[in-house]
Amino acid sequence: MIPQWVIEKKRDGGILQPDDIRAFIAGYTTGAIPDYQMAALAMAVFFRGMTPEETAVLTDAMMRSGDCVSFAGWPRPTADKHSTGGIGDKLSLMLGPLAASAGLAVPMIAGRGLGITGGTLDKLESIPGYTSQLSIPEFQRVVDEVGCSIIGQTARLAPADKKLYALRDVTGTVPSIPLITASIMSKKLAEGADTLVFDVKCGRAAFMQTPDAARELALSLLRVGRALGRRMGALITDMAQPLGRTAGNAVEVAEAIETLKGGGPADTRALTIELAALMCERAGVLGDRAAARRALAERLDDGRALEVFRRMVEAQGGDARVIDEPLRLPQPVAALEVPAPRDGIVTEVDARRIGRVVLQLGGGRTATDDVIDPAAGVDRLVQAGEAVTRGQPLMRLLTRDDVRAGTLLQEAAAAVQIGETAPAERKLVIEEVREGE
Amino acid sequence: MIPQWVIEKKRDGGILQPDDIRAFIAGYTTGAIPDYQMAALAMAVFFRGMTPEETAVLTDAMMRSGDCVSFAGWPRPTADKHSTGGIGDKLSLMLGPLAASAGLAVPMIAGRGLGITGGTLDKLESIPGYTSQLSIPEFQRVVDEVGCSIIGQTARLAPADKKLYALRDVTGTVPSIPLITASIMSKKLAEGADTLVFDVKCGRAAFMQTPDAARELALSLLRVGRALGRRMGALITDMAQPLGRTAGNAVEVAEAIETLKGGGPADTRALTIELAALMCERAGVLGDRAAARRALAERLDDGRALEVFRRMVEAQGGDARVIDEPLRLPQPVAALEVPAPRDGIVTEVDARRIGRVVLQLGGGRTATDDVIDPAAGVDRLVQAGEAVTRGQPLMRLLTRDDVRAGTLLQEAAAAVQIGETAPAERKLVIEEVREGE
Repeated sequence: MIPQWVIEKKRDGGILQPDDIRAFIAGYTTGAIPDYQMAALAMAVFFRGMTPEETAVLTDAMMRSGDCVSFAGWPRPTADKHSTGGIGDKLSLMLGPLAASAGLAVPMIAGRGLGITGGTLDKLESIPGYTSQLSIPEFQRVVDEVGCSIIGQTARLAPADKKLYALRDVTGTVPSIPLITASIMSKKLAEGADTLVFDVKCGRAAFMQTPDAARELALSLLRVGRALGRRMGALITDMAQPLGRTAGNAVEVAEAIETLKGGGPADTRALTIELAALMCERAGVLGDRAAARRALAERLDDGRALEVFRRMVEAQGGDARVIDEPLRLPQPVAALEVPAPRDGIVTEVDARRIGRVVLQLGGGRTATDDVIDPAAGVDRLVQAGEAVTRGQPLMRLLTRDDVRAGTLLQEAAAAVQIGETAPAERKLVIEEVREGE
Repeated sequence: MIPQWVIEKKRDGGILQPDDIRAFIAGYTTGAIPDYQMAALAMAVFFRGMTPEETAVLTDAMMRSGDCVSFAGWPRPTADKHSTGGIGDKLSLMLGPLAASAGLAVPMIAGRGLGITGGTLDKLESIPGYTSQLSIPEFQRVVDEVGCSIIGQTARLAPADKKLYALRDVTGTVPSIPLITASIMSKKLAEGADTLVFDVKCGRAAFMQTPDAARELALSLLRVGRALGRRMGALITDMAQPLGRTAGNAVEVAEAIETLKGGGPADTRALTIELAALMCERAGVLGDRAAARRALAERLDDGRALEVFRRMVEAQGGDARVIDEPLRLPQPVAALEVPAPRDGIVTEVDARRIGRVVLQLGGGRTATDDVIDPAAGVDRLVQAGEAVTRGQPLMRLLTRDDVRAGTLLQEAAAAVQIGETAPAERKLVIEEVREGE
């Protein structure tokens, strides 16, 4: 395999041989193929695309670049969910324990936030003592004993993706469906779960801004997953507006706990159940989708899902007392209310602006080595359809720097549109994507 | 300037700002911008192209990445020729001295051969003692005293091009007109010559295989040169068949000397005069093209061009006795004749196959650090239109390894097509390209 020949073939619109793709990724992983050749190939792929077959081989090669977890022979079906990321998206925190409470084993390897997009790991790590750095055997032990474990990507898991992801970020090769697919799927496949469900976010605060773009990614994910022998499902869900009434880290954990106690905002609860029902259906537990929805709602209401969460936090070293004593979570120095500028009905909350406010409050990262403030964020956020009166808080800005928060009041207020009449009801699930459609 | 933003802009079909191009090249030259970002940009340029204005700024930025020679205020007009490379193309060896004998100053920075394409420097260095590694002041002194100097690219001349050229070779980004233009022109402009004439080779042994492709490159070169204030000319010339009766290094020097003595093959003499006449016309010496042709032919016949060559060789440390005693040039260990398989008339000689034979004889490089055998090559090559009888030599293979040469007899013979009737006369100059046509 001569790397530049492979690059030239893709550049000229050819279909790469599986062996060439595998050799390229293997060489890139060891460093035998330098970053500049990978960058050139990535740009050629941006322009020329890849067939589903090429994308599947690329994904498989990236998965095999490191350790792969295996749950072969385990008594319970294994399943996981992946979201493409959004504002206030704390669903994994409830979904993993909820699915586990329904009999699935959920080995979840999650990521950190970057830019306006939050990360599940950052949220969990706001629980004092919680560690996301488990070894693979420890990870498997927690999944076995508790039913669910949420950890971070280890250096030995899909190292080719780690390298390529960082490279794409600085070479203008991020927005390529085959490369996005291989990046997401190589990590998810390496987790070893048999069933994978994708929550492809769509809207102004999402990576995919239109339903067409979201559908294209969802289909690519479904095809590759099927080609590599997994049971797959995908929903396109709204990310024009935030999920729930909180965005940040500790505040989202608090909201997740409320939801696991049977409460929480309606959108957060509904989408958690919807995604968990899809997972259960695909994995073959709890019957059909409608039955699964009912059974899962029960498990939120009767505390079984919460119990899994509690045991997972304990198993990963976290202080589970936060469940009953939320003040044990990191608390902000100041909480500034953002007053409504006038009376009316909330017609829309701009998730992108909320994300930017959280970022500027210290709750997110602009670079991967930034340190976040776990207590920073937004809570008590109004939602579309709610009536407000002038001066009533639209949200609270939580921070350790109230001077900075003061400068963000206007931007925060601008995120909330207030009109005269109630908006159309928000469609949380835009569509379910099935291969072949 | 954020490098990935520049890459993304080009990727999406935008036109880059002059300042961004300059900052990108400046950063790449110092190493602040890594190879992988340059590779991604180069691939984006491959797909999206560049406007003439962008190409001119890129060329200028690459030129200014290092030292620029200046002949400002010199009494004689300065001029140079560049060829895109071919088989048996020893024209620079005659053209530089010939143009100098007509009153031009010719500061020529030449390259080495790679693949089947020969290089002027390799040819000159087969003259014992000849050094192509002059400092810029030495180079200027030789141009001043002799009228012509041919040296190699110094590390300080267009270093951005040196880096980018090596990078493009291994990232599938060679065949891009703007990048080729900037590579050729940045070096040529840095030489400081006011007039630049391009010999864009066309045909199966050339980089540009069709007249359309050659014209596109020629036009791009003309536009950039004019935009940057130079007098420009360009011919598209045939490189389906080799030039002259020799291909290699020492053998080409011997043939160049013959031509400088008023002899040599008709094609070699004619094209030398044609390109020199274009140079003289553009630089404003010797009157119109027809007058220049006549005056240049005289200078080949009366020894004035040869005298410049002699003085240049001496000034650069070479043994000028090779001019009168060609056996002082490196001699091969063996010379194998390639017999004609049958009687007939030569209808065509395949320059590409001849190039491959020379390469395999040891006269060329497959990698830039290969060492070549200066004595290796082909001489006494038949030309199209000549009658041959069975067994008569079509060429000689010159080598230090006669066993290897023996294995090449068949490939060498296959380069020569023998038919029943004379072919149409070869059109050496396919067309002259003028901007705006």
